[in-house]
Amino acid sequence: MFPIRQIVNNVRRVAPGFRAMSSSGPLTAVEVDNEGIATVTMQRPPVNSLNLDLLQDLSKSLDEVAKNKCKGMILTSSSPTVFSAGLDIMEMYKPDIKRAETFWTTLQEVWIKLFGSNFVSAAAINGHAPAGGCLLSMSCEYRVMVGGKFTIGLNETALGIVAPKWFMDTMTNTIPQREAEFALTTARMFSVDEALKVGLIDETASDKADSVDKCKKFIKKFDRIPPLARAITKQKIRQGPLAWMNKNRAADTQEFLAFLQNPKVQQSLDMYIQSLKKKAAK
Amino acid sequence: MFPIRQIVNNVRRVAPGFRAMSSSGPLTAVEVDNEGIATVTMQRPPVNSLNLDLLQDLSKSLDEVAKNKCKGMILTSSSPTVFSAGLDIMEMYKPDIKRAETFWTTLQEVWIKLFGSNFVSAAAINGHAPAGGCLLSMSCEYRVMVGGKFTIGLNETALGIVAPKWFMDTMTNTIPQREAEFALTTARMFSVDEALKVGLIDETASDKADSVDKCKKFIKKFDRIPPLARAITKQKIRQGPLAWMNKNRAADTQEFLAFLQNPKVQQSLDMYIQSLKKKAAK
Amino acid sequence: MFPIRQIVNNVRRVAPGFRAMSSSGPLTAVEVDNEGIATVTMQRPPVNSLNLDLLQDLSKSLDEVAKNKCKGMILTSSSPTVFSAGLDIMEMYKPDIKRAETFWTTLQEVWIKLFGSNFVSAAAINGHAPAGGCLLSMSCEYRVMVGGKFTIGLNETALGIVAPKWFMDTMTNTIPQREAEFALTTARMFSVDEALKVGLIDETASDKADSVDKCKKFIKKFDRIPPLARAITKQKIRQGPLAWMNKNRAADTQEFLAFLQNPKVQQSLDMYIQSLKKKAAK
Repeated sequence: MFPIRQIVNNVRRVAPGFRAMSSSGPLTAVEVDNEGIATVTMQRPPVNSLNLDLLQDLSKSLDEVAKNKCKGMILTSSSPTVFSAGLDIMEMYKPDIKRAETFWTTLQEVWIKLFGSNFVSAAAINGHAPAGGCLLSMSCEYRVMVGGKFTIGLNETALGIVAPKWFMDTMTNTIPQREAEFALTTARMFSVDEALKVGLIDETASDKADSVDKCKKFIKKFDRIPPLARAITKQKIRQGPLAWMNKNRAADTQEFLAFLQNPKVQQSLDMYIQSLKKKAAK
Repeated sequence: MFPIRQIVNNVRRVAPGFRAMSSSGPLTAVEVDNEGIATVTMQRPPVNSLNLDLLQDLSKSLDEVAKNKCKGMILTSSSPTVFSAGLDIMEMYKPDIKRAETFWTTLQEVWIKLFGSNFVSAAAINGHAPAGGCLLSMSCEYRVMVGGKFTIGLNETALGIVAPKWFMDTMTNTIPQREAEFALTTARMFSVDEALKVGLIDETASDKADSVDKCKKFIKKFDRIPPLARAITKQKIRQGPLAWMNKNRAADTQEFLAFLQNPKVQQSLDMYIQSLKKKAAK
Repeated sequence: MFPIRQIVNNVRRVAPGFRAMSSSGPLTAVEVDNEGIATVTMQRPPVNSLNLDLLQDLSKSLDEVAKNKCKGMILTSSSPTVFSAGLDIMEMYKPDIKRAETFWTTLQEVWIKLFGSNFVSAAAINGHAPAGGCLLSMSCEYRVMVGGKFTIGLNETALGIVAPKWFMDTMTNTIPQREAEFALTTARMFSVDEALKVGLIDETASDKADSVDKCKKFIKKFDRIPPLARAITKQKIRQGPLAWMNKNRAADTQEFLAFLQNPKVQQSLDMYIQSLKKKAAK
């Protein structure tokens, strides 16, 4: 009952007359329309595997969106079939430990910037979104997925991997606990219809353009909401997972590095990569 | 498999033959029917804005209900269109800090008495219930809302305000995390149908009398449940938010007072009140 | 995106060619089929009341399942109408405190072994499952209930009892917070259809054989999921209640013992048992 709209509106002067701009790192492109909505496109062919370089590029793009006081950001992919295939296996195979550490802390950083962003965030999921791809989309505030044959889910267990605690927290921030347990243990990849039904996505779209449009419509819902109050409200209701990360970041990194240095893990990765090479040689 | 019904029933001797009574402070009325069900009516025209006086009166009425060992309490409004419009802006404009502190701690107190009450609680929501009005109803154990054009929700962000952590906790105690995040950030005011669908209310009613009847029916569900076991069970499953408040009460008050003493907040309140005066003068 | 399937598969060598076996304590029977799926049957007539002996027997059976690296376990009952009637009242009436302490810590132990098990767990609920019976089934990862007139729920308050915190946590791990609060305070016994709708059970079955078949089908979902990753994932997403128990086990036991030593509780138990005797004598 006590409107402080004016205050925060003063902070927001971005929307009408926001100068359209675009910039492009090698692996992500940022385009801001004249309403102040940024589209961040992951463009590391063929499947946006999240290696260190893509993550660093994405991290910079998120900074740019924040710095430009964009009213919102849409995360999407340049691939016609894959949103992101998740973490790049080659960052884990015979790793340089220093680089592997940077890889993991950059992943954490991207998540913190996305899950706790001031700006409104939405994912236009225009292709498959397994594992890390699903994580990125769930870290946004809204998800629109292109209908058809695509799938989405945290399928780490199918690969012998345990999703970190903060992957799980991001999922239970989105879907009910019971559904999350079932999905995580069974490595469930949801069809678009299944994802919609359980709340893993919010809307479906006919194609990429439609998914981007629907994300913009979501972002414009906030045109009359003072952005500072909105941002703090978002961060307050998400503070559980954010506080966990803040407290456990180093331990989480050590857990990942210990995993990588397990000889059995390396042996398994070796076998897997050999099998991929054989397939490729055929 | 071990019934201790008798014990707690001895404690409860209130139901049949409970002497009907009523009392009335200036701003709330308490009426107890012959079954031991109290109806607490907020009556501060025109819209039950929660100022210090109404909150203090409400706090005393809740004490009375508890002291009389009423089997249950129904919270409702004397207004035909508004359950409660939420916190009174005039308690925040050019505040006397001592009074503002009392105002906030009284709000906390009312919430503690309601959210953690021994008696069964239900809200007969016979009008709009924004912000603090929504909070009071969510603090009860059951909500029946009169159908039609009324709306309910925590719409603080629309006013440039951040709902305190315990407002959020009260909401996630009622509806799923994902729905709460969406509602809180977008300042969503739910229609009666939307509120029913998401679980923000439990039933609809045709008018105030029907809503009170349905609340009584809910309260009578507990006629065969030993009240002490019931009360402890309720407090145990609600202990997260209650323990948070117990630990953070002073800090929460300081946060509110710091907010009020922000010159931009006062400037904004001033502009808002001037605009209200202009409207009133027309 | 990094498959370590081989590693954990090496650990799992149990499925094809698992030698079928069976063993039987006095109060539970364990049968392992040739696919490595164990069925643990509670067989303490007439209603599988959970006394110390049944709990100790069940605890040993769970150890056996774990030791044999069974791929999964199905919990069911030899009674045609009752899954388990919950805790045995005779363990609480005029108790030997030493035995009562062992009784409670054994119940905690069974829960820890079930709720946090490495193996996949499912309950074939072939009869009523009130209180402790409901707890056991909710501690599994999947529930199939035989349709018809059976009921399930944590109905402790109807008996003047407060379900311990970890009973509540087990319920909110399964159904939404709002539903759990309503069910716990009202002592709600769900019909099979109601339980399915709210998510308290996952599937219905036409009879016991069908319920066991459906549980096996659930367990086989994991045939292609590396079991170590699966187990750690399960324990990680369930770590809240498990960590609580680990920290509060002694206090939880003391709370139970204090309850038992309340003269009013004993007086009430005495009245209840006398009334049962009268009924039996008719």
